Amino acid sequence: MAQDAQSPAEKSGVVAGRVGVVGLGLIGGSIARALSRAGREVYALDLDEDIERFAAIETTAGTLTDELVGTCELVVLACYPEGCVDWLHAHADLVSAHAIVIDTGGVKRSVCEPCFEIARAAGITFLGCHPMAGTQFSGYAHSRADMFEGAPLVVCPPPEVRGVTCLALVDRLEGLLAPCGFGRLTVTTPERHDEVIAYTSQLAHVVSSAYVKSPTLARHEGFSAGSYKDLTRVARLNPQMWCELFLDDADNLASEIGTLVGALNRYKEALEARDAERLTELLAEGDRLKRSDEREDEV
Amino acid sequence: MAQDAQSPAEKSGVVAGRVGVVGLGLIGGSIARALSRAGREVYALDLDEDIERFAAIETTAGTLTDELVGTCELVVLACYPEGCVDWLHAHADLVSAHAIVIDTGGVKRSVCEPCFEIARAAGITFLGCHPMAGTQFSGYAHSRADMFEGAPLVVCPPPEVRGVTCLALVDRLEGLLAPCGFGRLTVTTPERHDEVIAYTSQLAHVVSSAYVKSPTLARHEGFSAGSYKDLTRVARLNPQMWCELFLDDADNLASEIGTLVGALNRYKEALEARDAERLTELLAEGDRLKRSDEREDEV
Repeated sequence: MAQDAQSPAEKSGVVAGRVGVVGLGLIGGSIARALSRAGREVYALDLDEDIERFAAIETTAGTLTDELVGTCELVVLACYPEGCVDWLHAHADLVSAHAIVIDTGGVKRSVCEPCFEIARAAGITFLGCHPMAGTQFSGYAHSRADMFEGAPLVVCPPPEVRGVTCLALVDRLEGLLAPCGFGRLTVTTPERHDEVIAYTSQLAHVVSSAYVKSPTLARHEGFSAGSYKDLTRVARLNPQMWCELFLDDADNLASEIGTLVGALNRYKEALEARDAERLTELLAEGDRLKRSDEREDEV
Repeated sequence: MAQDAQSPAEKSGVVAGRVGVVGLGLIGGSIARALSRAGREVYALDLDEDIERFAAIETTAGTLTDELVGTCELVVLACYPEGCVDWLHAHADLVSAHAIVIDTGGVKRSVCEPCFEIARAAGITFLGCHPMAGTQFSGYAHSRADMFEGAPLVVCPPPEVRGVTCLALVDRLEGLLAPCGFGRLTVTTPERHDEVIAYTSQLAHVVSSAYVKSPTLARHEGFSAGSYKDLTRVARLNPQMWCELFLDDADNLASEIGTLVGALNRYKEALEARDAERLTELLAEGDRLKRSDEREDEV
């Protein structure tokens, strides 16, 4: 009976609850903290050895060596998109067939397509993930165990995994990530993810970044109410990271910018024509859309 | 000695601390609540007689009748821009020369120019004011005594009032409004106010309103993080009120929209050209501008 308590995963060398984290930035650091706090054994890797050492003192159990990769039940790739693909390419053969590998990036097509392929060839499981949290700050120093409390998590399983198998897999992932406290979990395709994320996240960052380019910025002291602060909050960002995300979703993002520019020009035309009726209608339409959007959020 | 305690204002019929509020919407209602809570005697007027009666039960001392206008030390015009000018035009002769009349609107040229003129002719004092607070909700029902705690207040004195006289006048106004708890007070011209406010407030509302027009809005469930929520918060607005504000500042606002559209198109072009260097530079420039903007806020 004692031997039977060992699961097939454990027989294969996987240690239950052991996690590998690749990349100790804001997201990887926060996942490492949340899982460690819950008693999971977390091993981590970072390009910056000082951060890796520092994390090993306060958060992780140590460095994720090649020898340890095969013992992890969950591997979290939390580096830049290209870095995730490169790591998986180099380490896929070391990962246990009983493990789940996820990434945490803000675009999914560019990571999921190659990673699904690598995982298929190696007979391992990869799920694209996008934890929708973060701050305008980046790096391990800003990571927090409670970063994901109530945050949405978007999951993209490989297309060949469907129905009950898919549900079971997502369920297992939810269990492994439970200490993070994610709110709503949405399962979708990489294509749909990238289409929607271009609108809800990337466009917001472009608009904030463009908003602060007005010459009036230098003269607004004493005039900034809440709306200005909200509109410009995410102008503060990591340019390299966002550039990579944007380029991996350039088609969708360029199209959303075009749609927004078109909408803005309609307000501008109504203003220039001093057309009160048209302008009120444009504003009323926005008000209606926002109200129905909020109602859906409440469901 | 007892008679000498009566100030020239009181001799003229003004009752110290008595306030008249014209318009019991979100702003007028909040000012009435803050001043009443501090023990000031507030009389108010509203187009909606039910609201006026309701306010008289819970907030105000009663209706601001024509007989009472001359006894007010402070008169707050908190209706739409046109309504403010109309009220002052009809009641200027009733206002005491010892009183201060202010408006509270979001545009200043269209109100200050006629009101300065009316006040000059009647020998009374009018100051344009813009309390930079509010919510996406409107109406007396949403008004709160603490609405202005720490909020910026912008004041536009008539151009002929300068130097020490101006300082003394603004100082007196600050005293009268002290129970509202305003934060920073900025003195400027109606022209500069309207230029800056087109950027910090009106443009923010146009962008939010335009943002929710994307067809992707209907499909974003489960994908909305903080940046989306911030960008679209003020899409929910009072279309008639904002239309009037926008049209009174149409020149500045149309110009800011044009500037923003120009900036957005530069991101779009860099994306379409897959130009990583240019895109990173655009984002880094936005990040730098936002950081220096935050530093100025801290000063």
